[in-house]
Amino acid sequence: MPRPVCAIVGAGEGLGRSLAAKFAAEGFDLGLISRSRAGSRAALDAAAAARAKTRVRHYPADATRPASLEQSMQNLVGELGAVDVLIYNVNDGFPRCEPLQMNYDDMEKTFRLEVVGAFAAAKAVLPAMRQRESGSIMFSSATAALRGSADYPLYAIGKFGLRALSQSLAKAYARDGVHIVHVRLDCDLDVPRMRELYGDDYDPALLADPDAVAESYWLLHRQPRAAWSNEVELRPHTENWTC
Amino acid sequence: MPRPVCAIVGAGEGLGRSLAAKFAAEGFDLGLISRSRAGSRAALDAAAAARAKTRVRHYPADATRPASLEQSMQNLVGELGAVDVLIYNVNDGFPRCEPLQMNYDDMEKTFRLEVVGAFAAAKAVLPAMRQRESGSIMFSSATAALRGSADYPLYAIGKFGLRALSQSLAKAYARDGVHIVHVRLDCDLDVPRMRELYGDDYDPALLADPDAVAESYWLLHRQPRAAWSNEVELRPHTENWTC
Amino acid sequence: MPRPVCAIVGAGEGLGRSLAAKFAAEGFDLGLISRSRAGSRAALDAAAAARAKTRVRHYPADATRPASLEQSMQNLVGELGAVDVLIYNVNDGFPRCEPLQMNYDDMEKTFRLEVVGAFAAAKAVLPAMRQRESGSIMFSSATAALRGSADYPLYAIGKFGLRALSQSLAKAYARDGVHIVHVRLDCDLDVPRMRELYGDDYDPALLADPDAVAESYWLLHRQPRAAWSNEVELRPHTENWTC
Amino acid sequence: MPRPVCAIVGAGEGLGRSLAAKFAAEGFDLGLISRSRAGSRAALDAAAAARAKTRVRHYPADATRPASLEQSMQNLVGELGAVDVLIYNVNDGFPRCEPLQMNYDDMEKTFRLEVVGAFAAAKAVLPAMRQRESGSIMFSSATAALRGSADYPLYAIGKFGLRALSQSLAKAYARDGVHIVHVRLDCDLDVPRMRELYGDDYDPALLADPDAVAESYWLLHRQPRAAWSNEVELRPHTENWTC
Repeated sequence: MPRPVCAIVGAGEGLGRSLAAKFAAEGFDLGLISRSRAGSRAALDAAAAARAKTRVRHYPADATRPASLEQSMQNLVGELGAVDVLIYNVNDGFPRCEPLQMNYDDMEKTFRLEVVGAFAAAKAVLPAMRQRESGSIMFSSATAALRGSADYPLYAIGKFGLRALSQSLAKAYARDGVHIVHVRLDCDLDVPRMRELYGDDYDPALLADPDAVAESYWLLHRQPRAAWSNEVELRPHTENWTC
Repeated sequence: MPRPVCAIVGAGEGLGRSLAAKFAAEGFDLGLISRSRAGSRAALDAAAAARAKTRVRHYPADATRPASLEQSMQNLVGELGAVDVLIYNVNDGFPRCEPLQMNYDDMEKTFRLEVVGAFAAAKAVLPAMRQRESGSIMFSSATAALRGSADYPLYAIGKFGLRALSQSLAKAYARDGVHIVHVRLDCDLDVPRMRELYGDDYDPALLADPDAVAESYWLLHRQPRAAWSNEVELRPHTENWTC
Repeated sequence: MPRPVCAIVGAGEGLGRSLAAKFAAEGFDLGLISRSRAGSRAALDAAAAARAKTRVRHYPADATRPASLEQSMQNLVGELGAVDVLIYNVNDGFPRCEPLQMNYDDMEKTFRLEVVGAFAAAKAVLPAMRQRESGSIMFSSATAALRGSADYPLYAIGKFGLRALSQSLAKAYARDGVHIVHVRLDCDLDVPRMRELYGDDYDPALLADPDAVAESYWLLHRQPRAAWSNEVELRPHTENWTC
Repeated sequence: MPRPVCAIVGAGEGLGRSLAAKFAAEGFDLGLISRSRAGSRAALDAAAAARAKTRVRHYPADATRPASLEQSMQNLVGELGAVDVLIYNVNDGFPRCEPLQMNYDDMEKTFRLEVVGAFAAAKAVLPAMRQRESGSIMFSSATAALRGSADYPLYAIGKFGLRALSQSLAKAYARDGVHIVHVRLDCDLDVPRMRELYGDDYDPALLADPDAVAESYWLLHRQPRAAWSNEVELRPHTENWTC
């Protein structure tokens, strides 16, 4: 009997790694997509370590180019089989600037990464999920999806768009049995990039453990379809939340 | 080794019954609170049937009278032990009226049922949960908590207040390890009362299965504290949602 | 020709005073309601100073007792005539406490002040406004209406309820030509109470000028009914806003 | 003494025409931007008719090409002077499709029209407004900015992004005295395009009068900066609103 398949777009050393390990441990075969195999090394290793029999494969793609993503998703499905869980988890490194410093190219690049790429990935699996009347699509997002920012306007513009896409897909295709979720991470994650950004202020007690976040993604996937959440916030118990 | 304890305030024949059965099946002892033992008969039976060794007890209380609720909670803790999961799940029957037809007494009664009672129940378990740094408190709510209504103003006023309470408790006590969740049911439930209200329009495919809803409450309780949701919506995959 | 009538419930020395002066200056007769004439002294004087011919009267009432408020509103209408603009602007002084320190009586008192009183005042003018197909009802509220608080839970519970009431009234009676608005002040006001609370940190540049806020209430009243706002936020240009 | 200047991007025969007439009537010189002079004919005529002495000029631009928009804005400022009010009011005709029918090019085109173009227009006037510490920028938006849609996903994706941009600009530059507003039209407008779409179902009583909407834009511009709204909803009194 074939194992279920989980595809993760944006499988780096942070949350992607934890998600890969979790779904491998739960018996899934894993298709990991990122720009380079080197960037997914930690995720590939973690998935392989989580469960010996799991098939773990890497497919290179540039998520800002939908044709590239489509091709990788097609290769993934061809080799591993139909996707049961798709997690879109890309990350553009939180560029900081005041709004007037944005340039048009960066705006479009952010939009392609956060929205067009998310749509391209979803499009590659949705028709089969609708036919089988099952499957989960989870978009990793952030509180930036709910409010603009004087310091991170690009991030807000991208995440607002991603949320609009996620809601639209859920409203259209939930009735066909596909579980589509916008996962708002209302926190910073305790991952290599964040440790670097925080520097001397790094305090693991204030950051979310990515393994715990991956566990909550897993619980979302397990919700029965008669009681689904489509927009979920996740935060560590230490977070001071404002909205 | 003692079993964990789940207290359900508002344990009738609908969602309360499903929650009782689910938490019993997961190994909890159950304390069910409602106005009368007869009203909780279905829930008591379902919990007992779910698992033979479970202790299932009923404690009568009027949730609109905080002293009555405090006394019952105290009796419950005295007999079953410290509460691990509290679910506040009361229901006032959706009185329909236009806003100008509300009377002051009904407004205050709704407030006592939805907000003061929820606080009284939470107050009875929170200090011990904070001390043990663990525990879940889940408030059954509805989309009415997010928007007023020309037809059900009392329900909206009550649920808005309940949401304010839930957020305030979560913001104050999450850091002590207590998981507090406002569960917005964005749907009608397939329960006896609803079958009656719908009459000839009754269609189970459009209503949420209360057993599935109880399953999603259980998954919420299982979230690790580094990745908690504090406001969750639940809806069946067939629901047309608007916000 | 009779002048239009503005009734202000909660007409103290802060925003109430500015509202009284503004609507007097625009040609309204003023009915000011508060617990004592002394408490409305500043508002009475400001209204009288704004325009010589304005009738300005005080009606005592305890807004936590709907019968008291109904009686005062009735006296006001009897003397000044039908109300064109009702502003519910009460204030309970922002009691600070952690949620577990709330007591049931304070919860009910807050609810009566913020929600039941607002309803009693609206009920006293709505039928006549619906009949004339004109009139504005504005509820002074705050960002606390949108999010709970670890420090001011009572305030949040009251304002959430007020918002539910305001939305419900607007959804039911806008079609009859009555403009009902929840005005969220996303700021602290530069009023005597706040100067006291801030103490050495007092900085007028960071607080909202109550005369400017009153001006924006006036502009809301002037919106044509084919393009109404029902939920409005007001903040000074210096405010750092989060939601 | 020079008259104030209002620039309207997207000045067609609907709301653009009403805005042009309103601001002309209030004494503004008008710079109208649209793809072709013919498309702005109604707006040009309405502005000229509203007030004889007003200067009304048309500047052609394709709002999906930021360089084109920048050039037109530059010409406008060169001829008419610094802009006091900018209204971004473009419209892409509400293309209807289910989410899976979207194509990547349309997604990017919508993004360029709704977000990049809005930014390009704002960027052309913001530095001077910040220097003068005055000016208003109003973005015409819709309830689609707050929720996804199974039927109009492109529209939602564009308007969500526009709202993120508007909030980000307001949070960054309000402190410099620039009033930035996201105007959510929670209704259909009684304009030629809508009359056509509704066909036999056309009922002016259920649509918003664009002249009234323009009046409410004008009132927003008049808010004092100590009591600004940054996100405003406008709906006719007959609208059944849901969020």
